[in-house]
Amino acid sequence: MPALWAHLLGAYDEDSLATLERALDPAVRISHGPELPAQPAFDLLVAGRPSTEALASSPRLRTLLIPYAGLPERTRTLLRERPQIAVHNLHHNAGAAAELAAALLLCAAKFLVPLDRALRAGDWSPRYRPNPSLLLGGKRAVVLGYGAIGRRVAAFCCGLDMEVAAIRRRPAPAPATSSVSVHGPEALSDLLTDATAVVVALPLTEKTRGLLGETALACLPRESVVVNVGRGAVIDETALFTRLQDGRIRAAGLDVWYCYPKSEAQRTCTRPGTLPFEELENVVLSPHRGGALGMAEAERARMRALATSLNAAARGEEIPHRVDVAEGY
Amino acid sequence: MPALWAHLLGAYDEDSLATLERALDPAVRISHGPELPAQPAFDLLVAGRPSTEALASSPRLRTLLIPYAGLPERTRTLLRERPQIAVHNLHHNAGAAAELAAALLLCAAKFLVPLDRALRAGDWSPRYRPNPSLLLGGKRAVVLGYGAIGRRVAAFCCGLDMEVAAIRRRPAPAPATSSVSVHGPEALSDLLTDATAVVVALPLTEKTRGLLGETALACLPRESVVVNVGRGAVIDETALFTRLQDGRIRAAGLDVWYCYPKSEAQRTCTRPGTLPFEELENVVLSPHRGGALGMAEAERARMRALATSLNAAARGEEIPHRVDVAEGY
Repeated sequence: MPALWAHLLGAYDEDSLATLERALDPAVRISHGPELPAQPAFDLLVAGRPSTEALASSPRLRTLLIPYAGLPERTRTLLRERPQIAVHNLHHNAGAAAELAAALLLCAAKFLVPLDRALRAGDWSPRYRPNPSLLLGGKRAVVLGYGAIGRRVAAFCCGLDMEVAAIRRRPAPAPATSSVSVHGPEALSDLLTDATAVVVALPLTEKTRGLLGETALACLPRESVVVNVGRGAVIDETALFTRLQDGRIRAAGLDVWYCYPKSEAQRTCTRPGTLPFEELENVVLSPHRGGALGMAEAERARMRALATSLNAAARGEEIPHRVDVAEGY
Repeated sequence: MPALWAHLLGAYDEDSLATLERALDPAVRISHGPELPAQPAFDLLVAGRPSTEALASSPRLRTLLIPYAGLPERTRTLLRERPQIAVHNLHHNAGAAAELAAALLLCAAKFLVPLDRALRAGDWSPRYRPNPSLLLGGKRAVVLGYGAIGRRVAAFCCGLDMEVAAIRRRPAPAPATSSVSVHGPEALSDLLTDATAVVVALPLTEKTRGLLGETALACLPRESVVVNVGRGAVIDETALFTRLQDGRIRAAGLDVWYCYPKSEAQRTCTRPGTLPFEELENVVLSPHRGGALGMAEAERARMRALATSLNAAARGEEIPHRVDVAEGY
């Protein structure tokens, strides 16, 4: 008899299920589909935004596994009332998210989007005009959030020969081999004062919402580039927009936003902010792809990470990446 | 009496001249301007494309200093007939060129240009479609040319957690601290067979022209991205174009091209290739900005590097970055 029944809520394609099953212990039984099973007695639910009904359906439910990083606000509200259910994340996509952060940083710092647009039209004139690009080597990078993504971002900034400072809630000494200095949140303003690159890889919590507001952004030199692959609301929208618009921040690369499509019909007609970021030449706009959604290789990594967590649960071992529902991540 | 008279052929702005003069030894006398001086008796000429007249004007001329990296073909022809004139380059812009290579690599691998274009129009639909992005971490990067630029590119690729192999004319063991393997040109095909990223940072010579032709490009896996910050003609245009067009190479980021504007009037209406690269969604087009032309910070670096070379010449020391006119770089 299986030691664990896990229900995967949602649509999973055959390739994903095959990858998952190859990596699962025999002790794990899975069911899957957009509906709940007829006689729900599962121990673990895999879902990001489960309904109240889904959470209440199985008397045996003790674990919610969100198959990505983060805790949606509504899910958090529901789970606060159900302390008997432990919440876990998957961090399979940290490599993809860090690479996207690197891409946004460099693409914004070098103004590749407007250069590409001009040259596609046969226009080489930007080559002969003053060049707004930022040189990054030898300058400071500040990485906000030093988890699975932030550590990788810090490593590639070191590869660019930048001086890297990371900020995390609980500062801890960096490994002896690392040239990254790690600081607590109180160091933020000081570090921003001579930052050329700022990369946000933070979850959204009460403490991080608006963390980069008017006061913090005012610390940044004009020759700086801001990247966000965490959550939009960590950076105050108005403060960011106005500083980009009037050149007090040179450039930005943004994968996370202030407005999202609320339905399938809205997917082709939703501005990403309440302010017109789409009119700014110095912003690279990316439609929240950090999670590597739809990337076959990343989906296989997700399924292998899911199997690792389910196998741990079936063996009674600690499931990785526990989420603190009170803290919000 | 100054030990060295250097004439800077061309227009130099005040800021550049001030930077230069602050760094020059008193023993160096400079003149500058688009014309030759009235009584030319300079020892050293700073110019990229000097005329026959300019090279013949001063009987004392022993050194041509090209104020960037490379040896234009016409200059090479003229200098082959004048073996008494030594040719030197400046490599002040290697950092900027390497950062541009990194930017093109990531921007192409993550398809940022079409994503930005769609989201500017409110279109999030690429988020929900299969994602063509390449993951780079853990994969192989092949860096062609392991000079001032290639070394920096290799370091950045290591920062992305790639396995890096470099190819240079004279293979030499990499420093013990480096995780880069260095190979001779004969290893090219083997290395390309499982390369996810290929970065060209080679000068154009008889040996490098068409080095990446049909045969070499056929070795590449479909899941690969090609970057060129060296010279266009190192990669065969037709072979590259057709493979990008039919998806046998996933993406490319190109800063150097097959066709350049031949006059100021052509700067706004010159297609960069004889084939329509501007119609390909999987290419990032950049108008030869690797040299950091027009970037104030890089221009100051150029002037400081120029002063270093002129000071060395005045002291009778070895001038850096000698160019082998027979080899062409």
